[in-house]
Amino acid sequence: MRYFDDVRVGDRFTGGPVTVSAEDIIGFAGQFDPQPFHLDAEAAKATLFGGLAASGWHTAGLTMRMIVGSDAKLAGGYIGMGVDAVTWPKPTRPGDTLRIEGEVLEARLSAKRPTNGVARVRVVTLNQTDDIVQTLIANLLIPTRASLEALV
Amino acid sequence: MRYFDDVRVGDRFTGGPVTVSAEDIIGFAGQFDPQPFHLDAEAAKATLFGGLAASGWHTAGLTMRMIVGSDAKLAGGYIGMGVDAVTWPKPTRPGDTLRIEGEVLEARLSAKRPTNGVARVRVVTLNQTDDIVQTLIANLLIPTRASLEALV
Repeated sequence: MRYFDDVRVGDRFTGGPVTVSAEDIIGFAGQFDPQPFHLDAEAAKATLFGGLAASGWHTAGLTMRMIVGSDAKLAGGYIGMGVDAVTWPKPTRPGDTLRIEGEVLEARLSAKRPTNGVARVRVVTLNQTDDIVQTLIANLLIPTRASLEALV
Repeated sequence: MRYFDDVRVGDRFTGGPVTVSAEDIIGFAGQFDPQPFHLDAEAAKATLFGGLAASGWHTAGLTMRMIVGSDAKLAGGYIGMGVDAVTWPKPTRPGDTLRIEGEVLEARLSAKRPTNGVARVRVVTLNQTDDIVQTLIANLLIPTRASLEALV
């Protein structure tokens, strides 16, 4: 388990794979992004996407699942303070198998919570042909070793 | 239905409400963000959240659902080119009823797709006591009237 003290700029982590079915895409869209290009393969053909495509928020959710299951193994869990940028260069398609590649861009003590650090990370989500389906820059709150020792 | 030609900086839109149950929060987390503070009310008490809290990505998904159902009524749907920033100042809690307030910050023709415009929008998600649970700045692709006429 890694505390903020153990996190270094340049640290890398990986996660995945997860495979996405048409049913997954349609199910997510029905709950969170009910638009024809995410709900109906036939209707999607006539849209910008040219076929069924996952909601970008579905790709984001799958990315979060892969971050939680990644080899970064952060103490305290993966608590996002916020996101600086998300892009979706290509959509996730039915049958895609996704994975993530992450890197720590910055690491600093939190001004508001000095017993915690904030790591700025970039997480790139790729499909089975190495197309990038999402880039994410997020700020994670990570406890220091001292903060955990203060609790016991 | 509003085309890019109809969109003006300063335009406002609203959406919601949606109400979120503990079961919704736990169900989303099981699929996309399986961490104790999103999965288990008892375990969540000892964490930074002090009780069960929705994944930020769940709040983001619910916000998207309210954008799609909003009174903005954009032609071509709500296609996000990407997100410039997301913050989660407070978590969404079981029983919260959320709504959105949106505003167009910028509107310009797309350099890559000149038959489309890009609207930069800010969408604030609030709970029933007007606490902000999410702020989002996103770039939406919106077809021009001419682009639709070119198809017929």
